[in-house]
Amino acid sequence: MPFTYQRTVHFADTDAAGVVFFANYLAICHEAYEESLSAAGIDLKAFFSDNAIVIPIAKSEADYRRPLACGDKLVVSVSPKSLSQDSYEIRYEITRLGPPEKSAARIRTEHVCIDSGTRSRKALPGPLAAWVQAG
Amino acid sequence: MPFTYQRTVHFADTDAAGVVFFANYLAICHEAYEESLSAAGIDLKAFFSDNAIVIPIAKSEADYRRPLACGDKLVVSVSPKSLSQDSYEIRYEITRLGPPEKSAARIRTEHVCIDSGTRSRKALPGPLAAWVQAG
Amino acid sequence: MPFTYQRTVHFADTDAAGVVFFANYLAICHEAYEESLSAAGIDLKAFFSDNAIVIPIAKSEADYRRPLACGDKLVVSVSPKSLSQDSYEIRYEITRLGPPEKSAARIRTEHVCIDSGTRSRKALPGPLAAWVQAG
Amino acid sequence: MPFTYQRTVHFADTDAAGVVFFANYLAICHEAYEESLSAAGIDLKAFFSDNAIVIPIAKSEADYRRPLACGDKLVVSVSPKSLSQDSYEIRYEITRLGPPEKSAARIRTEHVCIDSGTRSRKALPGPLAAWVQAG
Repeated sequence: MPFTYQRTVHFADTDAAGVVFFANYLAICHEAYEESLSAAGIDLKAFFSDNAIVIPIAKSEADYRRPLACGDKLVVSVSPKSLSQDSYEIRYEITRLGPPEKSAARIRTEHVCIDSGTRSRKALPGPLAAWVQAG
Repeated sequence: MPFTYQRTVHFADTDAAGVVFFANYLAICHEAYEESLSAAGIDLKAFFSDNAIVIPIAKSEADYRRPLACGDKLVVSVSPKSLSQDSYEIRYEITRLGPPEKSAARIRTEHVCIDSGTRSRKALPGPLAAWVQAG
Repeated sequence: MPFTYQRTVHFADTDAAGVVFFANYLAICHEAYEESLSAAGIDLKAFFSDNAIVIPIAKSEADYRRPLACGDKLVVSVSPKSLSQDSYEIRYEITRLGPPEKSAARIRTEHVCIDSGTRSRKALPGPLAAWVQAG
Repeated sequence: MPFTYQRTVHFADTDAAGVVFFANYLAICHEAYEESLSAAGIDLKAFFSDNAIVIPIAKSEADYRRPLACGDKLVVSVSPKSLSQDSYEIRYEITRLGPPEKSAARIRTEHVCIDSGTRSRKALPGPLAAWVQAG
């Protein structure tokens, strides 16, 4: 069972076409990622400001299937998977609750762990590797 | 008792100083406003896309008291008050949960109801006037 | 020669990792798209609020190659290509000016023209088809 | 003569009401502030990530006078003024170019210089003090 995150579409997410701006689908998925890490006991403040390692997103892919409007209720599922000792992918599905319930987007991100000093790849820290394995 | 909205600080809210970007405090308050309207039974989709009237924000004031970091848990209180037949203010307080609990910002917005066609002021629609009165 | 758009990285583009938030690379490309349409004589206000047709983004792919910091000077190239009578792709390259000059990201979006009423696909309007052909 | 910054309204600045989201007026002013600092020879990367001092915004006030739509051409004037040895205000005017040219917003921010370690107030660094004086 993947982790799921509930989210209401906010007015600030939308653009002049009346629906969520395409880049904001990715930002919503990142929120779900943060909540999933937090639920696994990983401290977000330390995670996103650790000076020794950084874990940037190397790739993203998005398949936008439905427009989303202000007030829409969403569920975002978060499915991480290991790619190597120092990288992982996350697959997200954004579902708009109904009735009827509809898949609104499928998104995939790729994350690589890097030593901040040398900029070379580095194995994932233990708690993060455990989060990926459990995903 | 004012309406309150719970919110976690997301990574996308922050900037390179490591804390929430000042303009995003206002966006967080707007989310609280939307949730308060929604809790009062006002349909957000219709509210923010009604073709007959618009209710733009005419003024905002913010007193930023504390930096907020990714993962911080917030409570935002929403206190609307009538200013005239066609306008109202909302006072927000953003509190960072603790321990210790700390006031992080006080924000005020002024809203004016306008006829979309003529751009002249217009009395608030009934459900919105009721929401303001109950605030 | 593709259209190019010059852009400085703003503080609001960044996140607590000190660099541009991954979703904002897509927003920067969309700005370049708007500027390219505008340079071709297409009126943005009409384009993004036309009630008869909408041209949502159906897919996006991004390959993030380098972090970008506040103040970095960027050039974004915009290369549209027809996919069918009712769809096109755009390939973007974000280059960070130097010295040394470095490729910072490659991004691709897919756009589909849709009739707002029926939600069925519709041939691109003439000026937009001409913009795609010239790209 | 205040420093001025030219800016086109982007699609990402807008919301489902079809115009610039109120919080984004502040973000646009911050861009103008960055460009003004940069034009005065202040390095933005160092300025916004200096570990010894931080200069957060303590207050903001905005008077929104006109809606702004995607594609609108803006000029933002930036007028800093010293408040004390360790603080300054900036007054911004956002003008929508025409014809006819119209004032779209007046915004004011208050900035306080703080020692990152002790969190106590600290005199502005020389180049910044010079920028404020010249404003």
